[in-house]
Amino acid sequence: MSKIIDGKAVAEKVLAECGQQIERLKNQGVIPGLAVVLVGEDPASKVYVGSKVRKCAELGLHSRKIELPVDATQEDVLTVVKELNADDQIHGILVQSPPPPQIDEDAIVRAIDPAKDVDGFHPENVAKLALEDSSGFVPCTPAGCMRLLKEAGVETSGAEAVVLGRSMIVGKPMALLLMSKEGNATVTVAHSRTKELADVCRRADIIVAAIGRPGFVTADMVKEGAAVIDVGINRVDDDSAKRGYRIVGDVDYDAVAPKCSAITPVPGGVGPMTIAMLISNTVKAAEAANA
Amino acid sequence: MSKIIDGKAVAEKVLAECGQQIERLKNQGVIPGLAVVLVGEDPASKVYVGSKVRKCAELGLHSRKIELPVDATQEDVLTVVKELNADDQIHGILVQSPPPPQIDEDAIVRAIDPAKDVDGFHPENVAKLALEDSSGFVPCTPAGCMRLLKEAGVETSGAEAVVLGRSMIVGKPMALLLMSKEGNATVTVAHSRTKELADVCRRADIIVAAIGRPGFVTADMVKEGAAVIDVGINRVDDDSAKRGYRIVGDVDYDAVAPKCSAITPVPGGVGPMTIAMLISNTVKAAEAANA
Repeated sequence: MSKIIDGKAVAEKVLAECGQQIERLKNQGVIPGLAVVLVGEDPASKVYVGSKVRKCAELGLHSRKIELPVDATQEDVLTVVKELNADDQIHGILVQSPPPPQIDEDAIVRAIDPAKDVDGFHPENVAKLALEDSSGFVPCTPAGCMRLLKEAGVETSGAEAVVLGRSMIVGKPMALLLMSKEGNATVTVAHSRTKELADVCRRADIIVAAIGRPGFVTADMVKEGAAVIDVGINRVDDDSAKRGYRIVGDVDYDAVAPKCSAITPVPGGVGPMTIAMLISNTVKAAEAANA
Repeated sequence: MSKIIDGKAVAEKVLAECGQQIERLKNQGVIPGLAVVLVGEDPASKVYVGSKVRKCAELGLHSRKIELPVDATQEDVLTVVKELNADDQIHGILVQSPPPPQIDEDAIVRAIDPAKDVDGFHPENVAKLALEDSSGFVPCTPAGCMRLLKEAGVETSGAEAVVLGRSMIVGKPMALLLMSKEGNATVTVAHSRTKELADVCRRADIIVAAIGRPGFVTADMVKEGAAVIDVGINRVDDDSAKRGYRIVGDVDYDAVAPKCSAITPVPGGVGPMTIAMLISNTVKAAEAANA
């Protein structure tokens, strides 16, 4: 019964669209460029940065990786950001999160030129999202979730949607997208303080889970026929796995999937979309800079 | 059974608090100043501007009314805003809405110094609201609604709240306040495209109605014991009234009130709070400018 949403396939589709835009830009002499700033040696951050740079190379984008030592100062990072703001070859800038504790991440985000803020975290882009001004950049993960719903044929207009989590990375922007004139869903934002969470979830036609708790959404919380988007990426110990752990989502997939009209697996669901939307935002930035 | 929330009394309380802050500022040689820009001759706008200026005078605030003709250009309005931005005597600026059609209201709002944007409509303040940065200005009407709930002893944490309407003046900021770490409510935003609206409303412990339709919320849509905040200000014809109309809210008050644990009347509920929060924001702006 259940329809598994293939995030890899949708991401490929998004990237193919980007490829056409990149081709057009190249014909105008423009190569979209993404700069990724990595402060410190966090192993997971290194993996993320590596895959972003690799994806740029695959697609013929210009990319630049700037690595700063773990003891870099706020001023060091701001200097790099300012240089990248002024660099015509760079259309998108992201500073990999989380930076070391001496760095004030909010201040760094505010220093990025909003027109190059392809993560969509600058206050100017946050405001544009709330104001439904499509000239801004939407954060990659919720943008990817919206695209997955669309590609899976899930109608958001008039649907009851429940967003689990209220972060500015996923929960709140997701809610704003779903309740916008384009989404037209009736949106409930639920979180750690929500009472009767199972009841709240059970009324949803669409559930977006972004609370970072492995297997939190169980079968009894999901209405028959609901669409479920699982944003969670949680490590759980698994001795049978080569690395000693495996990655699971916020949804108890095996139990929930049979009840759903559509569901994203983890991995292979939302994950591949995030990087595809980052590329898409970078191409959008390059187009806007050369319009 | 029902507890009528006296918006006038709560507004007086807010203004009394402002009075103490104003006294402290005066002792430092600062008089908080509000500038109100009125473009054109709209009668309702004239009434609103008049009452804002009068309230400032009552409280010993400095106020300035700038009237521009109905055929003022965008450049005329921007010039006034720029002068007010640079004026040390002015801590708060608002341009009365709606301006005549030749004026791009969004561009005017963006031109106001965010530190003087006491209406809370500048994108920088919109973003601060979403990001839960309390240094920004919250739009006056939703800020007033939150204060009314607090004064009425309505617990928002863990409550199911339904906001009817998704405008950036009331609905969305109200939802953001209710779902913030301070509000902690489980918030649903319902609107014109919501199906089964009555069912959605019936699950609410708190209803905030801001859809601009007289008497839209009927008794069957309200759970026994719910708190109801009525933001609506609608004119309906009434031959028995001196002016030929009367003002009613979005809630069918007479039928709904007996079911509620708390409810705001119209007039005398949210209305008086809006101007009180405007004064409060102006005093906050003056304090921040002199910190």
